[in-house]
Amino acid sequence: MVSEKMLALGESRSVIRDISEFGDARRQEIGAENVFDFSIGNPSVPAPERVGETLRRLLDSVDSITLHSYTPAPGLMKARMAAARQESLRAGFDIPAGSIYLTCGAAASLAISLRALVCPGDKIALLAPYFPEYKVFVENAGAEAVVVPPADLSMQPDLAEFKKAVESGIKAVIVNSPNNPSGAVLSAETLEAMADILRAESVKKGESIYVIADEPYRELVYDGAEVPFVPSIYPDTIVCYSYSKSLSLPGERLGYIMVPPCVNESGKVFAAVCGAGRSLGYLCAPSLFQYMLAECADERPDIAAYAKNRALLYGALTETGFECVKPDGAFYLFVKAPAGVSGAEFCEAAKRFELLLVPSDSFGVEGYARVAYCVSEDTIRRSLPAFKKLAELYSL
Amino acid sequence: MVSEKMLALGESRSVIRDISEFGDARRQEIGAENVFDFSIGNPSVPAPERVGETLRRLLDSVDSITLHSYTPAPGLMKARMAAARQESLRAGFDIPAGSIYLTCGAAASLAISLRALVCPGDKIALLAPYFPEYKVFVENAGAEAVVVPPADLSMQPDLAEFKKAVESGIKAVIVNSPNNPSGAVLSAETLEAMADILRAESVKKGESIYVIADEPYRELVYDGAEVPFVPSIYPDTIVCYSYSKSLSLPGERLGYIMVPPCVNESGKVFAAVCGAGRSLGYLCAPSLFQYMLAECADERPDIAAYAKNRALLYGALTETGFECVKPDGAFYLFVKAPAGVSGAEFCEAAKRFELLLVPSDSFGVEGYARVAYCVSEDTIRRSLPAFKKLAELYSL
Repeated sequence: MVSEKMLALGESRSVIRDISEFGDARRQEIGAENVFDFSIGNPSVPAPERVGETLRRLLDSVDSITLHSYTPAPGLMKARMAAARQESLRAGFDIPAGSIYLTCGAAASLAISLRALVCPGDKIALLAPYFPEYKVFVENAGAEAVVVPPADLSMQPDLAEFKKAVESGIKAVIVNSPNNPSGAVLSAETLEAMADILRAESVKKGESIYVIADEPYRELVYDGAEVPFVPSIYPDTIVCYSYSKSLSLPGERLGYIMVPPCVNESGKVFAAVCGAGRSLGYLCAPSLFQYMLAECADERPDIAAYAKNRALLYGALTETGFECVKPDGAFYLFVKAPAGVSGAEFCEAAKRFELLLVPSDSFGVEGYARVAYCVSEDTIRRSLPAFKKLAELYSL
Repeated sequence: MVSEKMLALGESRSVIRDISEFGDARRQEIGAENVFDFSIGNPSVPAPERVGETLRRLLDSVDSITLHSYTPAPGLMKARMAAARQESLRAGFDIPAGSIYLTCGAAASLAISLRALVCPGDKIALLAPYFPEYKVFVENAGAEAVVVPPADLSMQPDLAEFKKAVESGIKAVIVNSPNNPSGAVLSAETLEAMADILRAESVKKGESIYVIADEPYRELVYDGAEVPFVPSIYPDTIVCYSYSKSLSLPGERLGYIMVPPCVNESGKVFAAVCGAGRSLGYLCAPSLFQYMLAECADERPDIAAYAKNRALLYGALTETGFECVKPDGAFYLFVKAPAGVSGAEFCEAAKRFELLLVPSDSFGVEGYARVAYCVSEDTIRRSLPAFKKLAELYSL
């Protein structure tokens, strides 16, 4: 019969999808305006105007054969140059276009990077809380996930635990900053401490340990928070990126892998990325969107809308008595369940007030709920009395 | 270090790319009009008018958030319905939309299907000549390829050899009709004989053996050739499809996997396909193109242009004395090298007359050259004297 592993993966219910279907049923029963659905991380602001304008102009002015042809596997040179320019600005030094391999989005970037690096028996460290699909990609690549817990409400990793994981023999660690589900940004201080641990172990083993920096939310930061350029802190860093959030194009599947020249034997790592893309059936990123990217890589959506939602929700919830992770980035608020209450119980209780939140156990930590605030400001305002009732339930 | 397998795959030179780069150099040296480049299978006719019109209308009329959102993993229901309608027309009975899983193109369809089916130690049969990436996908899924040679110039498989392969214990066989690189179409008679062999062995083993029908060229057929609907001949058939050729959109990465209800435990097979897609990092097919598909699935490019090229080239080459596979479909002509000459030697000799052809050994057979006639009619006309000189070289 079919592969048991793939069958199990295909049949396993996603918690987020379950909540979203529950939401559909409630919307039918009591009306959409009475359901406060914070379950899905789909951008709620449109793509920048110039994206649509550029797509229309390309369709009007470029001949069909050119516009829709296969591109080289790593992408059109001018699209790779646009991505490299973005990275160069962050780095403060020149990143060559040859470092960029365009992909069909962040999930592809991660699946390909892991496949490129992993040898049989390898371990990959994940920092909890982490995006659930990381585990799927790690296992598909033939590796084993080692989970490092957070130190505290800051959601920086517990460094003693991280050291233990690194010394247990890992090939790479995936960092995701700003973080889904917590909104936390890893500080330069945290990254430097992690780099020291990784460097010491690399030297001891005599081989590279990689950081895979998954950064789809890096432009969505608030109050001047800074997302460090990780390769400057730890050279053996491969960056995975997606335009899903920064251009509000999640369905179009466009992202990249960057293997900067500072990576040890970067040419070999880049070649392995190309090989992994081939083996997973990726031919090229969608060509129309590559042409768009060449012109629009620096565009940003209306981040102010997210910033407003965040201030409103974080202010109201902390005032009501909830403990929350300080959401420096992304569009998630990670709310601590009251003492003695599990994340799942907390989210069940929230449902009584038509608040749809995601329990944190699927993200590898206990005792939190994720609130995706990429919704309308109006939804947030109207949800506040419900959060208040939830607080009262626990006598906060 | 990185995965040795992926590194080797990333570093291995593609024969087709080598020829194409040689072509670039020659074009610089002697002018593009003097190089007859038949190396690449990129559609040479534009996408149907309605495709561009629909894309422009969608960008004008549908709000950005809806148009560019994540879709469900198997695709938008109305796009799946459009694909199912196409299949129903071919089948002559109703194929439900729930049988369709949209993908990022044919390579993704194959990589996902194989990943869904393969268990450790499985064998997959390939019918030579075959598209070289099949081997990559088979090996990535953890299976071993078993190659079945063609019977003769008809490029139908040698049935005795096929029977041997099936009896050696295979999980599935990939059939590709119309075929890249030969243009041959598998006849209903061939498919029925193959089905008999597969059925007998399935019964003996007590489990399904699958046909994976890779059909990106099925609408590109000539002189009334018919491409049978394979599931009607052999029920345990999974169809892999791509719109790269039928809508001339190779760079946009849009295709599907169909698991028809006649497949044994089709629900489980479909679930395994969903699991395999997840594990390989596929989230959904590009959303703008899914909306387009809902309206344009039945459109076709100007196949008459390919038909004209085919008639011209096949006529001229056979008249000159070359033996060719009868090209019932696709846009390739498979030319036999003269007796005692290898495919590689033949293609080297052709280069002297600025004819760029692909030797057949990369397709798993010896002694042929692939001529991709998806070029302008003018290129074909102007190339004929060069083919004549090539024939004279071998005193044909």
